[in-house]
Amino acid sequence: MIEDREPIRVALLGCGTVGTEVVSLLQGRPGEFAARTGAPLQVTGVAVRRPHKHPEVPEHLLTTDAAALVNGDVDVVVELIGGIEPARSLLLQALRAGKSVVTANKALLAEYGSELYAAADAAGADIYFEASVAGAIPLLRPLRESLAGDRISRVMGIVNGTTNYILSAMDSSGASYAETLEEAGQLGYAEADPTADVDGFDAAAKAAILASLSFHTRVTATDVHREGISGIGAGDIAAAKSLDRTVKLLSICERVVDDEGNESVSARVHPAMIPRSHPLAGVGGAFNAVFVEAESAGQLMFYGQGAGGVPTSSAVLGDLVAVARNLVVAGKGPRESAHAQLPVRSMGATPTRYHISLDVADKPGVLSQVAATFNEHDVSIAAVRQQGRGPDASLVVITHTALDSALQATVDEIARLSAVNEVVSVMRVEGEQS
Amino acid sequence: MIEDREPIRVALLGCGTVGTEVVSLLQGRPGEFAARTGAPLQVTGVAVRRPHKHPEVPEHLLTTDAAALVNGDVDVVVELIGGIEPARSLLLQALRAGKSVVTANKALLAEYGSELYAAADAAGADIYFEASVAGAIPLLRPLRESLAGDRISRVMGIVNGTTNYILSAMDSSGASYAETLEEAGQLGYAEADPTADVDGFDAAAKAAILASLSFHTRVTATDVHREGISGIGAGDIAAAKSLDRTVKLLSICERVVDDEGNESVSARVHPAMIPRSHPLAGVGGAFNAVFVEAESAGQLMFYGQGAGGVPTSSAVLGDLVAVARNLVVAGKGPRESAHAQLPVRSMGATPTRYHISLDVADKPGVLSQVAATFNEHDVSIAAVRQQGRGPDASLVVITHTALDSALQATVDEIARLSAVNEVVSVMRVEGEQS
Repeated sequence: MIEDREPIRVALLGCGTVGTEVVSLLQGRPGEFAARTGAPLQVTGVAVRRPHKHPEVPEHLLTTDAAALVNGDVDVVVELIGGIEPARSLLLQALRAGKSVVTANKALLAEYGSELYAAADAAGADIYFEASVAGAIPLLRPLRESLAGDRISRVMGIVNGTTNYILSAMDSSGASYAETLEEAGQLGYAEADPTADVDGFDAAAKAAILASLSFHTRVTATDVHREGISGIGAGDIAAAKSLDRTVKLLSICERVVDDEGNESVSARVHPAMIPRSHPLAGVGGAFNAVFVEAESAGQLMFYGQGAGGVPTSSAVLGDLVAVARNLVVAGKGPRESAHAQLPVRSMGATPTRYHISLDVADKPGVLSQVAATFNEHDVSIAAVRQQGRGPDASLVVITHTALDSALQATVDEIARLSAVNEVVSVMRVEGEQS
Repeated sequence: MIEDREPIRVALLGCGTVGTEVVSLLQGRPGEFAARTGAPLQVTGVAVRRPHKHPEVPEHLLTTDAAALVNGDVDVVVELIGGIEPARSLLLQALRAGKSVVTANKALLAEYGSELYAAADAAGADIYFEASVAGAIPLLRPLRESLAGDRISRVMGIVNGTTNYILSAMDSSGASYAETLEEAGQLGYAEADPTADVDGFDAAAKAAILASLSFHTRVTATDVHREGISGIGAGDIAAAKSLDRTVKLLSICERVVDDEGNESVSARVHPAMIPRSHPLAGVGGAFNAVFVEAESAGQLMFYGQGAGGVPTSSAVLGDLVAVARNLVVAGKGPRESAHAQLPVRSMGATPTRYHISLDVADKPGVLSQVAATFNEHDVSIAAVRQQGRGPDASLVVITHTALDSALQATVDEIARLSAVNEVVSVMRVEGEQS
């Protein structure tokens, strides 16, 4: 009988919305977890800062001493505290003692992933972290395991629900960024301090994790070029709409091959226009979706809920079952795969495409001045549209692919042309052939 | 050095489009596979019927004696023959000798999955089969592993490319089934004998595999209710269109809970109308997509290429890396999970919803006769629409959820009403709240 086997002892660090759900499901469905794991799962303790704030957790499980819990008789540590310290020290302690770890901590993994992997490997312990990117969506296991026989060429995802909510709402309502952010805060879609979301820090940590797994290369959050959405105006959204495109904050991880065949990795977070026909364009509200291109598999998409206590608990518990199963059968989950060690490209050296909208003077020769500037920087123009006349004349240019530094330099110079009154909108273009 | 380790010896059975790609990638990227696996992967033989038909495979690897290859010095057998025999006997032989298996054989798994699992388990060998459902899409691993801590309530997928191509084309062109099937054959989207696809056998085998994994219950292809698309006419497609719906052939696996709280499984394949706003509605051509609902995770979708040699090779090679990695670290993949042993519901006892389009006589009282018939069978009507007058009068009824047998009996009786000239179209409705 499975129920007679030695239980797998599980310690939880942190007990917010995800932790509460994890404890409740583990306690509520013991038979189901035992059947799937091969041994009962027993919660031996839950470390929190203020025990009286957790009436839903049985009192004898609560402790404020996380270190003692980790150092005690436990087989698996589930970390849901978030942030770098004390999470990092506690997990290193656990791993060094041969205890396996399940964590949802994207910031920690994006910064200290290799250190944690190394500690796990040295002690023969497992580390799983499905919940750290795209919440409930099974994504990291497919990237790490299902696609292990393929070559991923590109991962492009909507992995931050707050910014996707805001951009989707701006797209529907035509409202300004400030108004929409305020509304998102009132509805609970944005934090009181929304910096981590709207400035792209959250998406950048996730991009680092995705790039590392996809390209077998160590990529940290600081390697990721990061631009947030606070500069997006109603004008940008309207410009996108007029071209049958929509604006999304994307985490993009690409394998870039130069003319000599040298490979490198681009990892970046920035808003971009994508065609409304792209599968990511329809991903609205707080949903997440990740579009993956691999050499053999072709185009794949993974879609689902990216946040929230209940959805995220699904990923945490899936990892916990995997770790516990490995303990039962003396197996071992995947290790760090960093054999490719590709260099990470700077943003300037990354090939991108721009959409540029200009408010121009209504005089002859404007287009030729602008076109000459593109030409000087070796940036090829894909399409030009001139709209209106008189003081409202505008010029919209979409480029072919060029190095981002060349595009940036072109825009800077165009802004100084006498015929250009204002650079109204500059946005990268993704999700279509160049 | 990984390259110095004993290689993992791999035998291939069958070498069609998938096998050719697998051999070519294994031979072309030895370092990459070794790095991801922890040991080199070495192809020791490829069993085919006609060796001269495979000039792309090194001659010394080819053999016509599959049994000798399986019984020889190999660690992993990759089966790409398809069909029941000789695949079943060969894989049982391999598993009983402790050799791990990777297979793409949906028919075999849907019928003899439990036998294969048992043989693998007894010998401590692995069996992986990601490529058997939805080609390149990482789907079975997420269901078996990522969602192992969740409760799946529903899986609804487009898992047959041929029928999806035909239905998508009928939806765009308004053409008949026969015309579209012929066109699909000419374009290579349908086989010369399309029975397995258009009559739903392929989708039913996949539904059996999906239901087994999702509900921890043994479900075989014969348990799956199966209806194909050959009865779908241009009128059905037009009827769906007029209601802003589209027709898809769906493989549906549901956990059904009755009023007493008893659980059972419904596994079925049939065409159904889904709203055009449903994520599956936009899945066109030969693409596959599977929509999953789980208690904690909520709604998930997996999208990608469901067939083709190159895409399918991605799933086969991902499995091969997993199996080989398990051999290197003495680990073990997931076993059969059939602990729930839920009963499988008959189609008659399954709750569904119907869309019924009737050609009716233009006399007073028709609607009341029809409504009375629904009422007698305890079927509740969600919406009725009367269109036209005179000889072209029609009546469209959409029901609430009821047992399929009651819906069927209602339709049979309505067909006999004097006021009803013809039952023009009957189609189940999925993907929306009842």
